[in-house]
Amino acid sequence: MKKETEVSGKKTIYFIKLSAPWAVLCHYAEELNMRAPLQAHNNPSTNWSEVLLEKLRLPNLMAEDVPNKPLDYFTCAFKKSKIDRFLGSDNPDQYFTNTQRSRIVHEVLSTAPFGKVKKGEIGIERLGPYEYPEGCRDPTTLNPRQVLYHYWARWGKWHKYQPLDHIREYFGEKIGIYFAWLGLYTGWLLPAAVVGLLVFLYGVLTINYNTPANEICDQRGQFKMCPLCNVSFGCQFWDLNDICFYARISYLFDHPGTVFYAIFVSFWAVSFLEYWKRKSASLAHHWDCLDFQEEEERPRPEFAAKAPLQERNPITGVREPSFPKSIRTKRIMAGVGLIFIMMSLVIIFIVAVIIYRVLVSIPLFRNDTLRSQAQAISSLSGAVVNFIIIMCMGRVYEKLAYRLTTWEMHRTQTEFEDNFTFKVFIFQFVNFYSSIFYIAFFKGRFVGFPGHYHRILGLRNEDCSAGGCLIELAQQLAVIMIGKQVVNNAQEILVPKMKAWWHKKQVSVKLSHKARTRWEADYQLIDNEGLFQEYLEMVLQFGFITIFVAAFPLAPLFALLNNWVEIRLDAQKFVCETRRAVSERAQNIGIWFTILDFMAHLAVISNAFLIAFTSEFLPRLLYKYEYDWSLSGYVNFTLATAPNDTLNEECRYRGYRDVHGDHTPFFWRLLAIRLSFVIVFEHVVFGICRLIDIMVPDVPQSLELKMKRERYLAKQALADSDAIM
Amino acid sequence: MKKETEVSGKKTIYFIKLSAPWAVLCHYAEELNMRAPLQAHNNPSTNWSEVLLEKLRLPNLMAEDVPNKPLDYFTCAFKKSKIDRFLGSDNPDQYFTNTQRSRIVHEVLSTAPFGKVKKGEIGIERLGPYEYPEGCRDPTTLNPRQVLYHYWARWGKWHKYQPLDHIREYFGEKIGIYFAWLGLYTGWLLPAAVVGLLVFLYGVLTINYNTPANEICDQRGQFKMCPLCNVSFGCQFWDLNDICFYARISYLFDHPGTVFYAIFVSFWAVSFLEYWKRKSASLAHHWDCLDFQEEEERPRPEFAAKAPLQERNPITGVREPSFPKSIRTKRIMAGVGLIFIMMSLVIIFIVAVIIYRVLVSIPLFRNDTLRSQAQAISSLSGAVVNFIIIMCMGRVYEKLAYRLTTWEMHRTQTEFEDNFTFKVFIFQFVNFYSSIFYIAFFKGRFVGFPGHYHRILGLRNEDCSAGGCLIELAQQLAVIMIGKQVVNNAQEILVPKMKAWWHKKQVSVKLSHKARTRWEADYQLIDNEGLFQEYLEMVLQFGFITIFVAAFPLAPLFALLNNWVEIRLDAQKFVCETRRAVSERAQNIGIWFTILDFMAHLAVISNAFLIAFTSEFLPRLLYKYEYDWSLSGYVNFTLATAPNDTLNEECRYRGYRDVHGDHTPFFWRLLAIRLSFVIVFEHVVFGICRLIDIMVPDVPQSLELKMKRERYLAKQALADSDAIM
Repeated sequence: MKKETEVSGKKTIYFIKLSAPWAVLCHYAEELNMRAPLQAHNNPSTNWSEVLLEKLRLPNLMAEDVPNKPLDYFTCAFKKSKIDRFLGSDNPDQYFTNTQRSRIVHEVLSTAPFGKVKKGEIGIERLGPYEYPEGCRDPTTLNPRQVLYHYWARWGKWHKYQPLDHIREYFGEKIGIYFAWLGLYTGWLLPAAVVGLLVFLYGVLTINYNTPANEICDQRGQFKMCPLCNVSFGCQFWDLNDICFYARISYLFDHPGTVFYAIFVSFWAVSFLEYWKRKSASLAHHWDCLDFQEEEERPRPEFAAKAPLQERNPITGVREPSFPKSIRTKRIMAGVGLIFIMMSLVIIFIVAVIIYRVLVSIPLFRNDTLRSQAQAISSLSGAVVNFIIIMCMGRVYEKLAYRLTTWEMHRTQTEFEDNFTFKVFIFQFVNFYSSIFYIAFFKGRFVGFPGHYHRILGLRNEDCSAGGCLIELAQQLAVIMIGKQVVNNAQEILVPKMKAWWHKKQVSVKLSHKARTRWEADYQLIDNEGLFQEYLEMVLQFGFITIFVAAFPLAPLFALLNNWVEIRLDAQKFVCETRRAVSERAQNIGIWFTILDFMAHLAVISNAFLIAFTSEFLPRLLYKYEYDWSLSGYVNFTLATAPNDTLNEECRYRGYRDVHGDHTPFFWRLLAIRLSFVIVFEHVVFGICRLIDIMVPDVPQSLELKMKRERYLAKQALADSDAIM
Repeated sequence: MKKETEVSGKKTIYFIKLSAPWAVLCHYAEELNMRAPLQAHNNPSTNWSEVLLEKLRLPNLMAEDVPNKPLDYFTCAFKKSKIDRFLGSDNPDQYFTNTQRSRIVHEVLSTAPFGKVKKGEIGIERLGPYEYPEGCRDPTTLNPRQVLYHYWARWGKWHKYQPLDHIREYFGEKIGIYFAWLGLYTGWLLPAAVVGLLVFLYGVLTINYNTPANEICDQRGQFKMCPLCNVSFGCQFWDLNDICFYARISYLFDHPGTVFYAIFVSFWAVSFLEYWKRKSASLAHHWDCLDFQEEEERPRPEFAAKAPLQERNPITGVREPSFPKSIRTKRIMAGVGLIFIMMSLVIIFIVAVIIYRVLVSIPLFRNDTLRSQAQAISSLSGAVVNFIIIMCMGRVYEKLAYRLTTWEMHRTQTEFEDNFTFKVFIFQFVNFYSSIFYIAFFKGRFVGFPGHYHRILGLRNEDCSAGGCLIELAQQLAVIMIGKQVVNNAQEILVPKMKAWWHKKQVSVKLSHKARTRWEADYQLIDNEGLFQEYLEMVLQFGFITIFVAAFPLAPLFALLNNWVEIRLDAQKFVCETRRAVSERAQNIGIWFTILDFMAHLAVISNAFLIAFTSEFLPRLLYKYEYDWSLSGYVNFTLATAPNDTLNEECRYRGYRDVHGDHTPFFWRLLAIRLSFVIVFEHVVFGICRLIDIMVPDVPQSLELKMKRERYLAKQALADSDAIM
């Protein structure tokens, strides 16, 4: 193997430029099952929007010609012996692409023994990092990285399609798939956001025709409400008219349009995932990694360095470093224990926030001017406190999880990543959503009634604010979701810049300052940190916009705005701020799809319960059906009278109870209807989703045809037809 | 290509013995992606029961040494150029197995043009059927077919494992997979049947401690019941004591054990399917068809003969017969219409049976001696009538569906079979289960109450018999399920025999009677009809034992007994009565798995509703909790008093209503609890099932290791390591 060595710089850093001769390239190309082109075919646009706009002869603002667009070919597995049958084989210099060469060199390096083979001292990772030289923002000729910057990463390109083929060409399939997914997701957010906005506007327009709110606002002094906390804490009787404003606002998040929107988003989520399956199959084929098999992974370098034992690998038969399975199992168990401890910590913090809310509201209630805003202030500030705790916990936990996963000694990088992903996702899921779940489904349900309040530690169980639980839920959601997006984006802009500055400072000491070569410039960039954080952020966002959409129809809009920024931020990070990573192959988004699918299912269940139990939709419907279609008298109907002997004055409280505190028949009927609604909603939505899943093939028909055609061509091209008969 | 022709017989039948030379075999083996052995490895037993018994050092009654057990090898795709690297390549005569040769010859024949290529006149099917000579029951040396007979198809082998490797060796993977599935299913039925029997026995043992039944039987004259049909039809007031016997019997099918059993079977079904996925992956790998890709299918001969147009095939670019897609779509639409018409026919017949039941019960009610049995007689005879209608409808519809599918002009055999399967399954599902669904969930729910009976056509809506709906459901299930099994098995014994007799009679005229050669004997066997009917029967049975198990815990036992017979019957059919089919490849049971999965899901839903609404479990539980743990007074509690002005005497009827006919609060509370039960049951069971699905990998770990080892060995063996460096 030929090595051209160019050493530049002083002190300890050596740059080695590697090149592989043709024979090596061919050998490894066959070994790695690379695919080689047989016949060009036109590279048709895969964006349906492009196709549609073209058909309607409308100008397409999003289309753009990016130079050096890679061609698409029918391909088949590369075979050295049939080299003459492949396109372009007469020009060995250009035959393999830049990405393919770098993968081959990586393969060669990572299998090259440098120490004792028996000790697993194989592979370049132990020698140190290596880079592929490429510059950024050079104003002269456009190299691939510059093309990506000019046609993709700039803010000015926010309304253009992403040049996915170029991205894949330069960064490899794994990163290409991420941006394809992100782009598709953002595109799909558009209709969801528009419908959500319309639903919200419908609420705004009809806000004055909401009979219950009008009754609350018009009838001052009619409904004297029982104190919301112990009289000894300073709570007093209050007039329902006080919360007129909240009653009006809560209608925005709780009108029949919301029910429609919850159903809409349930189907939207499932259709999106279904469509992504098809798109991902198309992309995987287009990028020739549809039937790629994970190559046998070597142990992680850290694992090899720390492993205490030697064992025969059951696959290759070679002795390798190993770690006793029983100890790893024990460590994993300990890890699971730690996750549970951390989760209980989350729960404890939620309880702390609840106590905070109760304690803060007491002085507010005592203050006459702030009384009407007391609950709003306490719940809003509670949400902010909660958000800060969540962000801190997340940061601490991720560090912990990383250490824990390292300690568990997983053999391969994939195992390591899967375990880490699982750990972090489970925790972040509980961390981000549990306070919201609490407000959505538990808060205010175990309050009891005057004279029989349920108490914990002497404090009455927390009731929802006077406007209803849904508005509090919307508040909490808005704070956590939007807050998270703002913090994350700020981080994504600032952190790489700071890291780069620090890295440059350290590096520039070692490098000569004049005549900077491309690889020196590249070395000054910071390391690529992978896609884990990006995926996690998006998946949690997907959860916010689907699971609780019934409470906050504007969530998809905020998500859309965030993602428009996110794409360009991520692009800039990859193109300008980090080194080029070794291109990795992937045929789909992996474990994240399972997680998204889980989220979409959870969303259906959650929306069913939200509409049935948290929203006022069903009680109003039943009241309309049984008593009055115009809803007049509804407010009076929903307020029970406190039992005579409990408070010194007669007062009202929310609940379907008679004067003895027993549930009225209406309550039981309503409960049956609520439960029926859950059952019907879930069965219908899941049934239709399942039907969509079965009816829509995971691989588009046109792709299937193309694959068959390709297989046929490969057979024809490679057949030794002269060998027989 | 060499052809040895041996003509025997007279008149019109020619037998041609084909053989292919070594070069042809090699060429097509590579073309067809056949796998060739690299290295032998021990063929370990895949039955966990075998492994377990061996570990416990118990004798294994089911084990048996079958001669000529095929060895297992690490394999890789056959490559002519590397022939020397494969095991056994020094002995060309034995290198390819019998089955492989026959597949190659089949491939050669079916691509051989015999007429105009342009008209699609390609392939042997149009020349006439062909056979592979093999005898049966020859007492001398054991050829593969005789081995199968002696060690598999005989009744004496009912307690032995099936020699799956031999079956696959002789019949090919498709039939092998069927018997593997059937065997596994039968094995899994054993625990389900045992638990079911125990649950039933628990019912039998505790039947005398059932307080409500004791109250009914002891308290003669206490409960005067309202007439069950119009007084003008002769129905009279009756005493609850009359149905003492049914009250006792119904306890057998409706006690807490049934609830446990329904949960058990829900998990059983899901675990079975999950285990089958693993087993099927193991088998597919063991039989080297894990990554086999469906070869491009040629058009069906009937299609080619009838197709009116010629079109370029988009894959091969060759002109082929074609049929306009728009016309096919129209025909499929018409087919869907017909399915709906047939389904309405099924519904009409169900209504007819209901009317029959009502009409038959009237004279029985008038008859004093038969009165107490009136409903039992009418419902039992109704079930029998219903069963006869179902069987006839099924027969008629299958004929119709076959014609319809032919008329739809599907291009390939697979498309044809998928469409046919879908049509027949949908219909048979409705046909077999709708009457049972009606009894389980609708019968007796819309009766109204004295004075406000709901009527259709002047007849009161049908009420459940006095013993409750569950016992009627059990009756209906037993009649349909057991009846179907008996009829099917009788058919499977008799029909092939009659067909064979008829075929022999026709054939023997044409053949000389002396010196019968093997192929002449084989020609006298009847054609193989494929596995469609076998699968359909089993899938419907799976539905019976899972969907309605809460009503009839003995169903799995009957299914087990049936399947023990079924395996040997099917085996005999394949070994002795039909010709050997061209071996087809398959890596799993195909569309049937989707159907089974659908059934398992439906079973959970159905069992949830059965326990919640049809069984007395929840009302009893709520009564216990609210009133009396010993259930005394329960009968009185469940009987409402008829409104005063409606009948001339005071009487009681089943229902939670007050004297005005309004539902009592208990009714609403119960409804809420029933609905909650459905929600909790479904979420818990589906949740755990989903967890099982995710936690248990579809491919066993040991298999994954084996596959990796195989890939590694293949790479090592085939690498041109000398070609570089």
